[in-house]
Amino acid sequence: MKERYTLICGTNRKDAISLYITSLYQEILAEHGVQAGIMALHHLPHDFAFSALYENYGKNEAFNPYIDLMLNTDKYVFVVPEYNGSFPGALKTFIDGLEYPNTFRNKKGALVGLASSGHGASLALSHLTDIFNFCGMHILAYKPRLERIEQHFEGGKLINEKYHQMLRRQAAMFVTF
Amino acid sequence: MKERYTLICGTNRKDAISLYITSLYQEILAEHGVQAGIMALHHLPHDFAFSALYENYGKNEAFNPYIDLMLNTDKYVFVVPEYNGSFPGALKTFIDGLEYPNTFRNKKGALVGLASSGHGASLALSHLTDIFNFCGMHILAYKPRLERIEQHFEGGKLINEKYHQMLRRQAAMFVTF
Amino acid sequence: MKERYTLICGTNRKDAISLYITSLYQEILAEHGVQAGIMALHHLPHDFAFSALYENYGKNEAFNPYIDLMLNTDKYVFVVPEYNGSFPGALKTFIDGLEYPNTFRNKKGALVGLASSGHGASLALSHLTDIFNFCGMHILAYKPRLERIEQHFEGGKLINEKYHQMLRRQAAMFVTF
Amino acid sequence: MKERYTLICGTNRKDAISLYITSLYQEILAEHGVQAGIMALHHLPHDFAFSALYENYGKNEAFNPYIDLMLNTDKYVFVVPEYNGSFPGALKTFIDGLEYPNTFRNKKGALVGLASSGHGASLALSHLTDIFNFCGMHILAYKPRLERIEQHFEGGKLINEKYHQMLRRQAAMFVTF
Repeated sequence: MKERYTLICGTNRKDAISLYITSLYQEILAEHGVQAGIMALHHLPHDFAFSALYENYGKNEAFNPYIDLMLNTDKYVFVVPEYNGSFPGALKTFIDGLEYPNTFRNKKGALVGLASSGHGASLALSHLTDIFNFCGMHILAYKPRLERIEQHFEGGKLINEKYHQMLRRQAAMFVTF
Repeated sequence: MKERYTLICGTNRKDAISLYITSLYQEILAEHGVQAGIMALHHLPHDFAFSALYENYGKNEAFNPYIDLMLNTDKYVFVVPEYNGSFPGALKTFIDGLEYPNTFRNKKGALVGLASSGHGASLALSHLTDIFNFCGMHILAYKPRLERIEQHFEGGKLINEKYHQMLRRQAAMFVTF
Repeated sequence: MKERYTLICGTNRKDAISLYITSLYQEILAEHGVQAGIMALHHLPHDFAFSALYENYGKNEAFNPYIDLMLNTDKYVFVVPEYNGSFPGALKTFIDGLEYPNTFRNKKGALVGLASSGHGASLALSHLTDIFNFCGMHILAYKPRLERIEQHFEGGKLINEKYHQMLRRQAAMFVTF
Repeated sequence: MKERYTLICGTNRKDAISLYITSLYQEILAEHGVQAGIMALHHLPHDFAFSALYENYGKNEAFNPYIDLMLNTDKYVFVVPEYNGSFPGALKTFIDGLEYPNTFRNKKGALVGLASSGHGASLALSHLTDIFNFCGMHILAYKPRLERIEQHFEGGKLINEKYHQMLRRQAAMFVTF
């Protein structure tokens, strides 16, 4: 059976760069014959952290389709900017609202980190790996870290050739993972 | 000058146990002559992840008092349940909405972990330590992990004497940290 | 081509329990038709941290066979006791003495944690996952943590049925990973 | 009582750069009136991982003075190069050979990371923080990461002014921590 892919833009900020990288990744996967949908956190109902979690699980009609989308995905690519030394809280809240344990168990994930700083998003990707491993999802070892991303983004494009290669290298590994 | 303390209940779930432990900690601090306020995430405006962050920073009148409260605190105690192998996304989203870098820089924090599982909230507390260190806040080394918490909570009370001692031990260390 | 497996007992202590679990795992793999050798750190030359690393890489005749063994393995199982909140230093020193980057790149690993405490070896396994991911090795998401191991080990045998099942479950997943 | 400081060069490699940074830090502390000794791992007996640990604890006459030195220190500065995505195994082995729990409990530590890569030694410092927190030692939040260190080291000197400032800033914070 054909594997179903979803690309997740891991911030609810209407963040040009993360969204652009997510779209770019979609194109790269298409070159491998993979049709992957994009899930952007900024489309979520604004009160989902309260109206769709815990005792309200399943009760928010606008959030439920995302539960289903994530449940019916086999392979996930997360594009994750660094905020406060880790990944955005909104991404973890989204994960906290998904079906457990079937969403991620025995699935496969690839992580891309973006950072304004030179340190990359090392800790963000480490924390996410812990969480997804806990949820039973295998994570591809190779996790590109696009550091000082603003310096490599111009006119709405990623202008760093090495970064393009890193994403292509990861995508090529991921489709056979 | 007198140090200002705030206790943060680290979930937006109307979670009896975390809130109870936070209140219990407030009483323990009172025995040391410390008056600490409680900040519970479930009181936040339900759409704060969108209406108070990023380009909307400072624009949500109902969220702004929390920015000020956190800025005007010297010592923080975070009571944190484990969700999906880390701490609740809502807590990180709250942190993402605070003033940077003055909220936590050169401040002091103490962390308490709660977990349903026997593994404790080790990774949750490790991730939080990374984040607060990144933000410039020193974390007390001793971090009680209250495992299998449901089994030690009865009739609305923490009935495990060892857990009481762990919290008292931490509080005694924290007031002189 | 047939995949080559190696089981690594992750302490240089002549530790009955870790070695026993490693042998037990060897038997479990044999039931899947997998013949896996055992590599025990306590067999390493006692001065390998100095005589086989850095400028002495490749110069210790007694250590070189281990470099080759690890290079010529496709799948690794690491059985790792918790020391000082992480895994034994001797295991990392061993890793520091191996060929880089070909030893682990694009290989596959499974991790088992042992701990005297009730907290399990969560942080040890998280740290190791970071290291192996850095080295390019994919880690199986499911990582059994055998807590309070001394209480479940009697007469030279692991007497906890749940722990046996955890190891069998992991092994079954790993042979098809 | 006067606080006793020890600087630890966190690799057993006869590594010019780490040792140099350790010496430089010693000078910076001296400007604060602090006399700190240097402990370099490459001076340890070469077989200490076997002859001084576990059942041999206390039996290696050449290692015992290091146990005492570390026990009789109040504040530690660790200068740590990145190896294989974390810190050198030899440093953890050294920690594994020290007296537990009195060596680090309620003591204070500062961490400096060195890395050849641009990612800094983020994960190395995070792992070490976990370990020292487990051992009961408080870690200064500010942890300078000297990235691409070879490019900033010339003629046996650290030539990057920003890196000098980072070390001075940390030292100033640490003497009052």
